[in-house]
Amino acid sequence: MTGPRYTPLAASLPATVPFVGPEAQERARGRPFAARIGANESGFGPAPSVIDAIAEAASGAWMYGDPENHDLTQALATHHGVAADNIMVGEGIDGLLGYLVRLVVGPGDAVVTSDGAYPTFNYHVAGFDGTLHKVPYRDDHEDLPALLARAAEVDAKLVYFSNPDNPMGTWHCAEAITQAIEGIPEGCVLLLDEAYVELAPEGTAPPLDVANERVIRMRTFSKAHGLAGMRVGYAIGHSELIRAFNKVRNHFGMSRVSQQAALASLVDQSHLQKTIARVAAARERIAGIARANGLTPLPSATNFVTLDCGRDGKFARALLQELISRDVFVRMPFVAPQDRCIRVSCAPEEELAVFEQALPLALASIT
Amino acid sequence: MTGPRYTPLAASLPATVPFVGPEAQERARGRPFAARIGANESGFGPAPSVIDAIAEAASGAWMYGDPENHDLTQALATHHGVAADNIMVGEGIDGLLGYLVRLVVGPGDAVVTSDGAYPTFNYHVAGFDGTLHKVPYRDDHEDLPALLARAAEVDAKLVYFSNPDNPMGTWHCAEAITQAIEGIPEGCVLLLDEAYVELAPEGTAPPLDVANERVIRMRTFSKAHGLAGMRVGYAIGHSELIRAFNKVRNHFGMSRVSQQAALASLVDQSHLQKTIARVAAARERIAGIARANGLTPLPSATNFVTLDCGRDGKFARALLQELISRDVFVRMPFVAPQDRCIRVSCAPEEELAVFEQALPLALASIT
Repeated sequence: MTGPRYTPLAASLPATVPFVGPEAQERARGRPFAARIGANESGFGPAPSVIDAIAEAASGAWMYGDPENHDLTQALATHHGVAADNIMVGEGIDGLLGYLVRLVVGPGDAVVTSDGAYPTFNYHVAGFDGTLHKVPYRDDHEDLPALLARAAEVDAKLVYFSNPDNPMGTWHCAEAITQAIEGIPEGCVLLLDEAYVELAPEGTAPPLDVANERVIRMRTFSKAHGLAGMRVGYAIGHSELIRAFNKVRNHFGMSRVSQQAALASLVDQSHLQKTIARVAAARERIAGIARANGLTPLPSATNFVTLDCGRDGKFARALLQELISRDVFVRMPFVAPQDRCIRVSCAPEEELAVFEQALPLALASIT
Repeated sequence: MTGPRYTPLAASLPATVPFVGPEAQERARGRPFAARIGANESGFGPAPSVIDAIAEAASGAWMYGDPENHDLTQALATHHGVAADNIMVGEGIDGLLGYLVRLVVGPGDAVVTSDGAYPTFNYHVAGFDGTLHKVPYRDDHEDLPALLARAAEVDAKLVYFSNPDNPMGTWHCAEAITQAIEGIPEGCVLLLDEAYVELAPEGTAPPLDVANERVIRMRTFSKAHGLAGMRVGYAIGHSELIRAFNKVRNHFGMSRVSQQAALASLVDQSHLQKTIARVAAARERIAGIARANGLTPLPSATNFVTLDCGRDGKFARALLQELISRDVFVRMPFVAPQDRCIRVSCAPEEELAVFEQALPLALASIT
């Protein structure tokens, strides 16, 4: 019996998940984690007003969400001082990345990213048969001039760049980005992933310039807003590129409850400010724990701190396993030399105390 | 300044929405609908237990959903008596349709559907450059033998067939489907969309046969379960085809709150049975209103009733507009001769009373 005839591309793709979730690890381990500080989620949670909004939206869950995401789009446009047609709401940045890649990347088309940057972006590029060119990090920072130079060299249609960066937590100031943007090659789009930007120092995000067809920015409610589980991200860009998402997106893909949660969270700027302060304090706390144990915390503009373990990837991977076996869910960079580090998400004190207790034991067991 | 270089396919696609949402119509009209009975949502709502589960899940919305959808998948597997690797959960049937089309349909690949069946499926086929072949309805029923004959003729890789059907509400018995399935051509997959099947008479769904590589079934929490706004659907099929979704899906695309809502709804079978009874009563009520106004209700195995207006598409479209202008949100089939009908979703009495009042006025204004 002949089964489905997959496309040659689909037949060639591996059936993998870009990240194994903590739940899968808990099932494999047979017990829950005591500290969930590996996925850069926000243990500080959504605002109480957002929790209320979700509960209130529940009885209306029988209705499809507005496929135009009108109310949320309008609110975001007002918030950012752009027009509604410069905003596209979608199922998290992951979903929007997939749509953007699909719009511009076909078989063999060149795409540029940093070696060790966001794997889900790479997954989408592979999924549409693009050719990925990787540029090394420079001193644990993504290197925008080098990315754009490579883009010019390989005639790239798309460049991925996150600021602040994940997994290193490092960042560039707005001026450096603005200057680099001048050099985006013709016919190339710079995807500026700003998932963590609300948590970065003032002056990290360049001013929005939606007249520039060569830049698209992505933001999310998953990090500072504490709504990773609701799947709401958005793109900010030139109206023509924004409109193009309507060619390929899942128009009814947004949960109605998520639309309302995001809207409520956008309104509650005071909770956002509180979270930003809590994240800053947690960064200090994580850095202190690290230093007390001989690890070096990297400066971070995100809701996580990347800890240089001072040795090679093998050592960091061993440490990661020891932490996991001590019920601490953490992750680490995949690629050398960044894989000398582990990455710890900001979280309430209760979970950081678990980390504080586990870290010296984990280190002792491998040194 | 040269903007993005879209793929030739993306450049050729229109930037449209398969359906305009009722919210967009309300914004255009400047006032809300009094009866939302056009999108086959379930005004009977989610179960109270599900509303509680959503509220309870809200404080955990800071966590990403399990990318393996483990708990929901296990529960569905148990419910249907299949293995977990025969189930793929996704962002509504719409999302899963997109993934399936992407897996098998490339440029010029033949796909077969009924002329006037689900437009979102056609949207996905166009989005991956497939060639769509359309088979006419036969007596307001999708015609599975004709669909499969056409599939053999054009060497189709995928056939879409919904049972019960949308937009006509008609259905075939399990035996007819089972018999037709024997004739699926080699290398062809039959996509059996069973979005409404919980609302159909006993004996409408053929037995699940997950050993058959040529059939994939799709189900949803959007209709009988009253959770359209949560975006949860699932596919049931051969483990190899199910596994293939991992090549292209948005692994972290499911809302964690939606996962929990669906799980709670699956558990609450008593509410589901109540909804099924309410839908059956509402079908009778809609049929009665139609007959009292000289329209002919078609037999329905769904949560809507399609009403034959007895004249041509122009007449039905005029009637639809008159109903909309009287604050009744309804839709209608797009294609002749089915477009002689309008389609009314089952709903609580309050909304059907609005329809009952509006219908004679709408008819009077155009006859």
